[in-house]
Amino acid sequence: MLRSESMSRFEFPTLTDVRAAAARIAPFARVTPVLRDQALDELAGASLHFKCEHLQIGGAFKFRGACNAVWSLHEEEARRGVVTHSSGNHGAALALAARSRGIPAHVVVPEGAVRAKLANIEAAGAILHVCAPTLAAREETAARVARETGATMVHPYTDPRVIAGQGTVVLELLRQAPEVDVLIAPLGGGGLMSGAAIVARALSPSTQLLAAEPTGADDGWRSMQRGERVVDVVPNTICDGLRATIGEINFELLRARGVEIATADDAQVLAAMCLLWKHLKQTVEPSSAVALAVLLAQRERWRGKKIGIILSGGNVDLDALSFLKQATESS
Amino acid sequence: MLRSESMSRFEFPTLTDVRAAAARIAPFARVTPVLRDQALDELAGASLHFKCEHLQIGGAFKFRGACNAVWSLHEEEARRGVVTHSSGNHGAALALAARSRGIPAHVVVPEGAVRAKLANIEAAGAILHVCAPTLAAREETAARVARETGATMVHPYTDPRVIAGQGTVVLELLRQAPEVDVLIAPLGGGGLMSGAAIVARALSPSTQLLAAEPTGADDGWRSMQRGERVVDVVPNTICDGLRATIGEINFELLRARGVEIATADDAQVLAAMCLLWKHLKQTVEPSSAVALAVLLAQRERWRGKKIGIILSGGNVDLDALSFLKQATESS
Repeated sequence: MLRSESMSRFEFPTLTDVRAAAARIAPFARVTPVLRDQALDELAGASLHFKCEHLQIGGAFKFRGACNAVWSLHEEEARRGVVTHSSGNHGAALALAARSRGIPAHVVVPEGAVRAKLANIEAAGAILHVCAPTLAAREETAARVARETGATMVHPYTDPRVIAGQGTVVLELLRQAPEVDVLIAPLGGGGLMSGAAIVARALSPSTQLLAAEPTGADDGWRSMQRGERVVDVVPNTICDGLRATIGEINFELLRARGVEIATADDAQVLAAMCLLWKHLKQTVEPSSAVALAVLLAQRERWRGKKIGIILSGGNVDLDALSFLKQATESS
Repeated sequence: MLRSESMSRFEFPTLTDVRAAAARIAPFARVTPVLRDQALDELAGASLHFKCEHLQIGGAFKFRGACNAVWSLHEEEARRGVVTHSSGNHGAALALAARSRGIPAHVVVPEGAVRAKLANIEAAGAILHVCAPTLAAREETAARVARETGATMVHPYTDPRVIAGQGTVVLELLRQAPEVDVLIAPLGGGGLMSGAAIVARALSPSTQLLAAEPTGADDGWRSMQRGERVVDVVPNTICDGLRATIGEINFELLRARGVEIATADDAQVLAAMCLLWKHLKQTVEPSSAVALAVLLAQRERWRGKKIGIILSGGNVDLDALSFLKQATESS
């Protein structure tokens, strides 16, 4: 591990950074509860500890990273605000974090993005900048906004301050459920799993780390197989929070920390979402449920283990409720 | 208060009984989390601490009382099982508690009870006894089952073991959110509020105690106004868990402990249910939401206070999800 790390072009955030982040965000973020359920334990044949980040401010773990980034800025920088491109939870989280410091947040969103999500970001107080729905247009627009306003760019998952912030989830989880044998979290761009790996490797080295990806956006899994970052996967999954391509720093960090990646398909994700609704009484995003889906797909492997599962977000749209209703009725 | 207590025909359970209950049920019941939300705090103008008993085993606080009753029995009594009449959460809770001790549970249910609820009670392992849908028929049938099987009757809210068990909710809450100025819980038969009052008066004497009743089943409120138990209210409310008439011991205990009763109508209850879904991301029964509804109806009175609110159950039927979906869409 040391060798690959020394070969990395990146300086990874450390446990010290995560601890500093925890202190920085403590006045604003929530210590989310860990929930358990006997029926789910029996189903999995293991002892499951669900870390409820869907109950975090803004409904997702994203607030932690955004809040750490915002409160890491010097006074002078902060005054000029922050900028990002995201039509999802990170955009809303950054806006909420900026509001906690009373500074402007610019969020670049693509034309045609889901209206409800934009309304959510705007309600959090962001200034929206609409651009063409391509990655190039998003990046250019964000760069232009940064140039024109002096706002600091806060990338959703490659920013080291964001990674350190996300790590605070696991700092808490390891206090609430010490010595888990396995830790599972969803993988999109890799911010959460990067933070998780930093903390788990430092505080609980024997814990196995498993990143859960939807089969329809398995760029992380393919990258791990090939040993280099695969960037040409066209995502096709209901896990809308996990469509991003794994970041460079995130891929290298996950490799260096021995994180394994496993996948589950959308049907397995929906089944897991129903189980979480039925037994835990929690409505989570498909992007959250993928972690339980992967675990259940491998249940023989983890029998009898103590397992931490990060439920990353709960910003379901209204159709999800209809789906849960129908699925429960027909079961 | 001493005077009215000495005049009572009942010997009320004490803090010692509640503490014994807490020890007895600890291996089986969950320590439920307390959730908070800034938007709800702002809405109420107060600091709200939601005790999540909808996340208790069986989806309601009822498991605590049932479990304490079941584990209070001598070995010989226990072997003959337990019996109750309930088509709701208490029936399922008693079945689950009996299962934890490996003893039979007989649950008397009225003809025409909601199929889903009966399935729930049966799934928990109870032996169902169907009777005519009158209180007399229920009581007779339960008495007959007790006679024939030797099972011990466990009344849903007048049984002192049940009251002591329900009190453990507040034992936990006062550790999780110490020194609340106000404590609000729903009022049906009065088991939860009785247990709550015993604990709060002993450990936090200055806490104001407020019982929340639906306007359409306000027998408790009327009883308090009249100074004697009113038993002729015909319930008409969506709060199906709160249709029971307040018990004699419960009414006397609530009077002796200075519990105030306030009401909210069904529209206010549904609005509160939507707020809990929107901000806390929790689906609770209307019977739970009445506590927040009462608080919001009196918000001027409680401005700036620290408030404990017991979310008593989360066994919503499927229509509730449709309702939440529609209500959120149209708002």
